[in-house]
Amino acid sequence: MGKDVTVAVGLGERAYDILIGPGLIARAGAEISSRLPGIRTAIITDENVAPFHLEALKAGFEAAGIASSVVILPAGEKTKSFAALQEVVDAILAARLERGDAVIALGGGVIGDLAGFAAGIVRRGMSLIQMPTSLLAQVDSSVGGKTGINSARGKNLIGVFHQPKLVLADTAVLDTLPAREFRAGYAEIAKYGLIDQPDFFAWLEKNWQEVFSGGAARIEAIAQSCRAKADVVARDEFETSDRALLNLGHTFGHALEAAVAYDGARLVHGEGVAIGMALAHRFSVRMNLASPDDAERVEAHLKAVGLPWRMADIPGKLPDADALLAFITQDKKVSRGALTFILTQGVGQSFVARDVPPSQVLAFLKENHPG
Amino acid sequence: MGKDVTVAVGLGERAYDILIGPGLIARAGAEISSRLPGIRTAIITDENVAPFHLEALKAGFEAAGIASSVVILPAGEKTKSFAALQEVVDAILAARLERGDAVIALGGGVIGDLAGFAAGIVRRGMSLIQMPTSLLAQVDSSVGGKTGINSARGKNLIGVFHQPKLVLADTAVLDTLPAREFRAGYAEIAKYGLIDQPDFFAWLEKNWQEVFSGGAARIEAIAQSCRAKADVVARDEFETSDRALLNLGHTFGHALEAAVAYDGARLVHGEGVAIGMALAHRFSVRMNLASPDDAERVEAHLKAVGLPWRMADIPGKLPDADALLAFITQDKKVSRGALTFILTQGVGQSFVARDVPPSQVLAFLKENHPG
Repeated sequence: MGKDVTVAVGLGERAYDILIGPGLIARAGAEISSRLPGIRTAIITDENVAPFHLEALKAGFEAAGIASSVVILPAGEKTKSFAALQEVVDAILAARLERGDAVIALGGGVIGDLAGFAAGIVRRGMSLIQMPTSLLAQVDSSVGGKTGINSARGKNLIGVFHQPKLVLADTAVLDTLPAREFRAGYAEIAKYGLIDQPDFFAWLEKNWQEVFSGGAARIEAIAQSCRAKADVVARDEFETSDRALLNLGHTFGHALEAAVAYDGARLVHGEGVAIGMALAHRFSVRMNLASPDDAERVEAHLKAVGLPWRMADIPGKLPDADALLAFITQDKKVSRGALTFILTQGVGQSFVARDVPPSQVLAFLKENHPG
Repeated sequence: MGKDVTVAVGLGERAYDILIGPGLIARAGAEISSRLPGIRTAIITDENVAPFHLEALKAGFEAAGIASSVVILPAGEKTKSFAALQEVVDAILAARLERGDAVIALGGGVIGDLAGFAAGIVRRGMSLIQMPTSLLAQVDSSVGGKTGINSARGKNLIGVFHQPKLVLADTAVLDTLPAREFRAGYAEIAKYGLIDQPDFFAWLEKNWQEVFSGGAARIEAIAQSCRAKADVVARDEFETSDRALLNLGHTFGHALEAAVAYDGARLVHGEGVAIGMALAHRFSVRMNLASPDDAERVEAHLKAVGLPWRMADIPGKLPDADALLAFITQDKKVSRGALTFILTQGVGQSFVARDVPPSQVLAFLKENHPG
């Protein structure tokens, strides 16, 4: 087609390519058979995605001579469970797939996390191909090898690092996404600019409308996000240091998601990240690390694209500041009692702060709480 | 104490030490706190091991200021299940352990495999300390990072590679093992000599009685086994090539275990390996790879130590040769239809044969079947 952009993820023996372009689901059979000849597959997808994309994928697989079995799971976060994991693992074993055969994750972040985890533990690690169908999954969860399920004690507490052999991001599928979901995914795109790519953030401020409307700007924004994430992951695959930068906005964001009991009608993940990023900048101003201009610039961009940027933008009543702090200290990014936050010295100048005093966070939450 | 032997496992960033010596369970607290200061722990053990060793371990932990919670599981292979995995994972999360805290596997191969798997998936990988209490676990399953559970479709089909931070092999606990279990573990010791250490095999032929009676020869035999396994693992951590050598005797052995429906009264794992090793040598003679003298030497040693060495040594009736071949082709070491066996050119000269004709295996099984 010539339209695809390829992003190489440099992880030595575990290096892989991300292909980004329109129509990749229908062309997946051809792409996979040329790169991984002779493999058989198990396609893991959900009830929302299957009606739109499964037939096209299977037709391309058949044309390329790739055998496949299919597991269709209920859509939604509850599918990231031990029970669903066991179902997927058993289906892969029932299909008698071997280590070099591939699990195909066709769906959003939930399917990618679950199917990736299953691929990571069947026969102690099988090949995995990610085919993300949401913007969030295309720019975040399908890149970097994090997989997992939820525990009653918290999200994503159980999983493995398992890198895919190939990621196929079909940008045409994004045309059918609800506007709110697209916007939520866009928050993660903006995040990469805010972490360490000020030029990319400036480009987004100018070109965000074209990213939303589709075409070359969208593909470029997704590719640049994948490149940015791939760079961070290559520096720190197992999250012992720099990879934590990818959590910009996530400490506040996760606490807000927990505070609304993960009620997607009130707040979806990308929206939590958007508010979290704005708060991280505002908190950095309060800590005399960044200038108020930086925080205002971030808030203005989030507002422009239609994302929430402050706690008051969440419909309904929030728990008080003490309760929000409790959600933060329960987060898995807390290490040995010290609070770790991603703070910033300005747009594109984020850093990992490992010793933020809880008292400062509490005071900040009180000042910014909508009451 | 000065009595411990240390074997270093050279795996770069994942390198670790194996300490081998008497009384290490009681001294574990001191050893761990000096190497991994400040960690908290979850001790995973079973109903057979806990009454003998848990109190000594906990007393040492308390003296060293190491906090611990305890999970005691039913003993036996059935514990390598999704249900037990979920129980252990939940207990680790309930104890609020963080990534740098440690899961302690106190027990035989079942506990090591299960607790190691749990440590590999909680928070995408926590620290793990193996404290093997069986001879088999000390010389095999606690070294090399393989972890896992069983599926209804086969043993060890679900798991991860997760290297421990430390292995503490208390050789004094072996004094209380039943003689049959000690002998079964000894089969794996002999295996290392047969793979690629002819001098070690010759040493065992001379010194096996002292290995059985305890003391310095036992410690040396365990240490040499760990060194041998560590060498193979360091060359091929993820079992893409040479690591398969560790399966010497296991293809025949697994088939025999399956043929008796894993009835430990008839055949335990190490006994299956013993017969499997003798068969692998005899089969290599039949394929004109090794001399009959080599096969006889292996058979004589196994007989001398009281291990079974031929199919006729298994009490009760066995399935016929065709059925045994079917168990072999179902084994996970079958790759894309070709049969992979570890064959040998003589004592200590094993190699990976990836294209053994099933017809030859069938003919050999018929010739050696007790009828």
